Amino acid sequence: MNNLFEIDEWKIIQKGFDPAKQKQAESIFSIGNGSFGQRANFEEKYSGDSLQGSYVGGVYYPDKTRVGWWKNGYPEYFAKVLNSCNWIGINIEIDGEQLDLNQQKVLSFYRELDMKTGTLSRKMNVRFKNGKEIEVESLRFCSMHDEEIAAIRFSVTPLNFNGHVKFTPYLDGNVMNHDSNYDEFFWEEDGHKVDVKKGYICSKTKKTNFTVSTAMRFSFWMNDELLDIEPNHISKAFYVENNFDHYLEQGNRYTLKKYVSIVSTINHSENSVISRSINNVRQAYMNGFDYLLKNHISSWGEIWSKADIQITGDAAAQQGIRFNIFQLYQTYTGKNANLNIGPKGFTGEKYGGATYWDTEAYCLPFYLKTTDPKVARQLLIYRYNHLQKAIENAEKLGFTNGAALYPMVTMNGEECHNEWEITFEEIHRNGAIAFGIYNYIRHTGDDEYLVQYGRPVLFGIARFWAQRFNWSTARNSYVMLGVTGPNEYENNVNNNWYTNYIARWCIQYALEVNENLKSKPGEQLTDQEIEKWNHLVQNVYFPKLEGTKIYLQQDGFMDKEQLSATDIPENQRPINQHWSWDRILRSIFIKQADVLQGLCLFEDHFDLETIRENFDFYEPKTVHESSLSPCVHAIIAAKIGRLDKAYELYLRTSRLDLDDYNHEADEGLHITSMAGTWLSMVEGFAGIRIEKEVLVVNPLIPSSWTNYRFQILYKNNPIIISVSKDQILIENKGDQSVNIELNGNLSKIEPSNKIDLILT
Amino acid sequence: MNNLFEIDEWKIIQKGFDPAKQKQAESIFSIGNGSFGQRANFEEKYSGDSLQGSYVGGVYYPDKTRVGWWKNGYPEYFAKVLNSCNWIGINIEIDGEQLDLNQQKVLSFYRELDMKTGTLSRKMNVRFKNGKEIEVESLRFCSMHDEEIAAIRFSVTPLNFNGHVKFTPYLDGNVMNHDSNYDEFFWEEDGHKVDVKKGYICSKTKKTNFTVSTAMRFSFWMNDELLDIEPNHISKAFYVENNFDHYLEQGNRYTLKKYVSIVSTINHSENSVISRSINNVRQAYMNGFDYLLKNHISSWGEIWSKADIQITGDAAAQQGIRFNIFQLYQTYTGKNANLNIGPKGFTGEKYGGATYWDTEAYCLPFYLKTTDPKVARQLLIYRYNHLQKAIENAEKLGFTNGAALYPMVTMNGEECHNEWEITFEEIHRNGAIAFGIYNYIRHTGDDEYLVQYGRPVLFGIARFWAQRFNWSTARNSYVMLGVTGPNEYENNVNNNWYTNYIARWCIQYALEVNENLKSKPGEQLTDQEIEKWNHLVQNVYFPKLEGTKIYLQQDGFMDKEQLSATDIPENQRPINQHWSWDRILRSIFIKQADVLQGLCLFEDHFDLETIRENFDFYEPKTVHESSLSPCVHAIIAAKIGRLDKAYELYLRTSRLDLDDYNHEADEGLHITSMAGTWLSMVEGFAGIRIEKEVLVVNPLIPSSWTNYRFQILYKNNPIIISVSKDQILIENKGDQSVNIELNGNLSKIEPSNKIDLILT
Repeated sequence: MNNLFEIDEWKIIQKGFDPAKQKQAESIFSIGNGSFGQRANFEEKYSGDSLQGSYVGGVYYPDKTRVGWWKNGYPEYFAKVLNSCNWIGINIEIDGEQLDLNQQKVLSFYRELDMKTGTLSRKMNVRFKNGKEIEVESLRFCSMHDEEIAAIRFSVTPLNFNGHVKFTPYLDGNVMNHDSNYDEFFWEEDGHKVDVKKGYICSKTKKTNFTVSTAMRFSFWMNDELLDIEPNHISKAFYVENNFDHYLEQGNRYTLKKYVSIVSTINHSENSVISRSINNVRQAYMNGFDYLLKNHISSWGEIWSKADIQITGDAAAQQGIRFNIFQLYQTYTGKNANLNIGPKGFTGEKYGGATYWDTEAYCLPFYLKTTDPKVARQLLIYRYNHLQKAIENAEKLGFTNGAALYPMVTMNGEECHNEWEITFEEIHRNGAIAFGIYNYIRHTGDDEYLVQYGRPVLFGIARFWAQRFNWSTARNSYVMLGVTGPNEYENNVNNNWYTNYIARWCIQYALEVNENLKSKPGEQLTDQEIEKWNHLVQNVYFPKLEGTKIYLQQDGFMDKEQLSATDIPENQRPINQHWSWDRILRSIFIKQADVLQGLCLFEDHFDLETIRENFDFYEPKTVHESSLSPCVHAIIAAKIGRLDKAYELYLRTSRLDLDDYNHEADEGLHITSMAGTWLSMVEGFAGIRIEKEVLVVNPLIPSSWTNYRFQILYKNNPIIISVSKDQILIENKGDQSVNIELNGNLSKIEPSNKIDLILT
Repeated sequence: MNNLFEIDEWKIIQKGFDPAKQKQAESIFSIGNGSFGQRANFEEKYSGDSLQGSYVGGVYYPDKTRVGWWKNGYPEYFAKVLNSCNWIGINIEIDGEQLDLNQQKVLSFYRELDMKTGTLSRKMNVRFKNGKEIEVESLRFCSMHDEEIAAIRFSVTPLNFNGHVKFTPYLDGNVMNHDSNYDEFFWEEDGHKVDVKKGYICSKTKKTNFTVSTAMRFSFWMNDELLDIEPNHISKAFYVENNFDHYLEQGNRYTLKKYVSIVSTINHSENSVISRSINNVRQAYMNGFDYLLKNHISSWGEIWSKADIQITGDAAAQQGIRFNIFQLYQTYTGKNANLNIGPKGFTGEKYGGATYWDTEAYCLPFYLKTTDPKVARQLLIYRYNHLQKAIENAEKLGFTNGAALYPMVTMNGEECHNEWEITFEEIHRNGAIAFGIYNYIRHTGDDEYLVQYGRPVLFGIARFWAQRFNWSTARNSYVMLGVTGPNEYENNVNNNWYTNYIARWCIQYALEVNENLKSKPGEQLTDQEIEKWNHLVQNVYFPKLEGTKIYLQQDGFMDKEQLSATDIPENQRPINQHWSWDRILRSIFIKQADVLQGLCLFEDHFDLETIRENFDFYEPKTVHESSLSPCVHAIIAAKIGRLDKAYELYLRTSRLDLDDYNHEADEGLHITSMAGTWLSMVEGFAGIRIEKEVLVVNPLIPSSWTNYRFQILYKNNPIIISVSKDQILIENKGDQSVNIELNGNLSKIEPSNKIDLILT
């Protein structure tokens, strides 16, 4: 695998312009601040192949469902992430010719995403057809300090001439979604206004009535001197611009500073969004670019101080892990309970929706260990807020009495996926949400949350499972029929081991929580429920391979032709691009960890031998055609001491998008799987486990690395872990003592103390 | 269940106009001639709710596939039956007011479909807003004698006035499909011309380039006197008309005779269709209406002389069975190897496609016994012509070496269905085609067909099955994973008993045919194939319920909650309208005969006790939500002596559309299931079985019937079977002696002889 761009520990760097890489670069150099985000489209016109993308968190359009054959229960719509007002636009024109890298000769080109500062910059020299050459420098950011602000500094320096240049900063709300079922335009105008050096557009989504106001102001500078200009202004529906001709002198740098504010009804009332966006840009304009930038960088500094992982000895791995952490924080910061973590974040439209089970299974542990627990709590409150919708969703499928089935994909709590084998059957997602609650509690001990928010969600989920199992007279057990497990290369199977296991666990945990919180006000399980559920948890059927410790993925798994992924000819990989769906289903090949996913979540329920035996059975059958798969295998491989395998799997995940393994980075990045990468570092190599009163650490280090070092939050105590081949250092930066089990040895570290284990 | 229309042994009659029944009536009163067909839309303008439909056999549009989530292997398009040029149009206008039953007062209304003569007629009195009253009489037919001709006789009699009436006969090709994935218009114009008393439109389908020329001529009469008129003529794209005002005298009858010819590139070259259609209508015009009608009626007489079933003592049953026979012959006559039997025939657009497994499983036995064997042969040749496409279809799914998988739905041999659980998995259809070959051979002994056409198809099908089974080490048997059986309320199951059974039988039959035809030129199986297949047929796994004779529908069937259809609350029926898809899948309820379908096809492989035990197991679980289901149960119920049950199930099927049980007759009729109804009479009540050298008859008669009587062809000998409660009469009208086993007693009937069994 060749690296798409330059390797650097803190930066993504592109040297030289390559139109063929433009869409990939637009994804990879994306910036965002958890509230909105922007692909790395150019500020100036670009007529080459590009995917324009500005996204505002939580703003969606209910795109009418498109199916060939309607099945009862399908949702009416799919919530599409919306391409919204293009706020970066600055056109440059010399003698009637527009700056457009698809047209001019690009003499030099340098693009940089600085992950430390969260800034995207560009520097390039361009020769126009008339021979005039300019240098362009730009820098932009979506403020991590003020979630409604973005700013651009865009400079032009004439290199070989004096002459007029036309500058046109604009906002353009007339944008379509690439991914639209019926080629509809999703917006209607809700007003616009333009004046000298300022303007705004307010757009409203059809049907959902989300209102987004985008306002701009700008100033114009020669070197450090503010210039007085009198721009023309133009406006039409969904569009405002200023434009002005200025006489530029060779060698001087002329700079537009464009301030933008994006305000939506996600956070504010409809009648306040326009005025708020105008006030925001006025304030930003008055504070100035450097001030905004300083605050922005400082906010990123805060994040990095908690979340960074330093790897010494492997710059590609260092860049990879930071890229994953960076993108996760660009996507979600936990400031708003209406937002969640879309699979592509703010880097593309694909998949739509904002919330998958990825959030609880992959992202939650990342935020739990790298930032204030409020962030993880916010993600869980999001699900609490959708509980009623989840109950309605279950009712549509025939469940009763408060059973809750959370949707596979959602923006507002309503299901919007429409493949029956996923929508109705990939119900293990319900288990991941319950596990998220459990995980949050063991990290934080936040009983107040559990009483008020966690418990009702757990009960709804457990009620669903209790009804979803049915008694099989033939097996004298409870069975679960017609499900799709995490391995989506099986559909409509019976007794998927993972689903049966997590379902039973949910019911057990709900019973336990009910018992523990008996004295707290709020809902309690009925005696009938308790009795039935106790009978159920003792009598669930699990498919097993006789004479072994292997749990079978589902009923009938051993009837398949027993092959290994190495039997698949290279030119037929990935099989999802080469094989018909039925062939994939019939084959033994596993898209994504399934039994191993369960063993990973519930590792403490199983002995090492069981884990090893199952890993050896399933890993050779797994084709890892989901970005969520290799990390789970990496964690288990590390657990059972297969360091080389763990490292191989880690490599698959950590630079997935940076090196575009799957040839789809042009469509956007795999945001949620980035949390999986992080997990394979922290739970995999470092062997971190959170137990009720003990922080377990069993670290390994790949042979090519000299050291890695990171901090996690354990019961809100920052713990530094540093691993070298000959030394393991664990430092308690918190204010409480912490129990540590390092390589099996239990000890207590007092605040500001450390363990320094020298390995021989 | 109330009858929608009047009961009559030979006619469907509607007395009184009811706009709410108009779309149902349009379907039920449809006429066709196997080559084209027409819903019972009115000739004159009708502004009320209506589904306009003129269909030309074999002419389709490849409507771009609409799915939410693309899966590898999905077809690019769905072949849509096309609504084509409206040829019936005759507008009538009095003093600027158009005749339109949605506008005027309908004083009387009588509509009749005479099944004996294949004519649709209407007689009605209408009062215009100005008080003028007219009587309208019309009669039309699609000539069964000349498959390119239709004719309409349309009369107006002024009842209370003398005055001008405007007549506008026209052709209108500007028609849309109701069922279109992206609201496209499917036609382009390929020319039109209009002149005095004549005109044509030639339309071409986009993409597929089918060309259809529709030509008309007409004459105008007062009573029996041909009138000389000078009509105006108008034309525009897709439209030609003549119009003329005529002064009508009270009490006289003024008649338009409109002759139409529809000629398409299904039968003729593109550059000949226009001239051919023009020549056809000229000839028809010269021959005159009565002559065409006489020939048409005589052709229907021919059909009825072979295919009629007479039931005495139950007029509703009599009407029902004739309606089924009538519609089947309107849909398919066997004249053209490019045509087949669409599920809605020429009565609606729904489902698209022309060819499902219904053809071989249900329709073929009907044609085999009611008309010249050439017709059934034509249906089988159709599949032979698609063999290469079936091989390509299998290749797309990963099969090799000439394995053939026939499509679930097709117009031209290519698959056009796009639900993976059907398209890729409902592969039992392949078995039905092989069974069709076997069935044809046992009826006809046509070895010449078998050598040249049947054998290669059989080998392709058997090769598919041989690859589709896989060896299960766990079971030490061949298993078949991931299929959907005839019961589509299960998807992606393992070891569907029916599919395993018919698949194994196909391989056995292919081996047998290979052996028998060894000496004939043509393809032979390789030694390797013979060896592998012999091993396979001896080692196929079949799920069974231990300790019983019950074959389990699929693996895991006994894990379901064991319920009976009577446990479903009435307000939740049909479950496919009330339950989500996953709930249906998990439930034990069966949409359509599955194991019983196999026992029905291969009845002679099983003892009576096995059939009875399986019937008692499955019938209570079957909700019969497919129109193809009750007939199979009826046949088996009769076989095991459950006459009341057989009669109950027969009632469900025989008047399905006439009484609109499923509230969907407005969309068109269930043409292919009509053959199932016929089977439940002939194989059910009459107990007819075709064995190699014996015609088996085991008749029963429902208690409310006095007698039923029909003819079947057995080795091309017409055999009359007449059953009363106290007498069974079997007469050989052929020219060869025939072995008959009547109620277990074997005898031989010489030509022109009969058996007359008096029952005591």
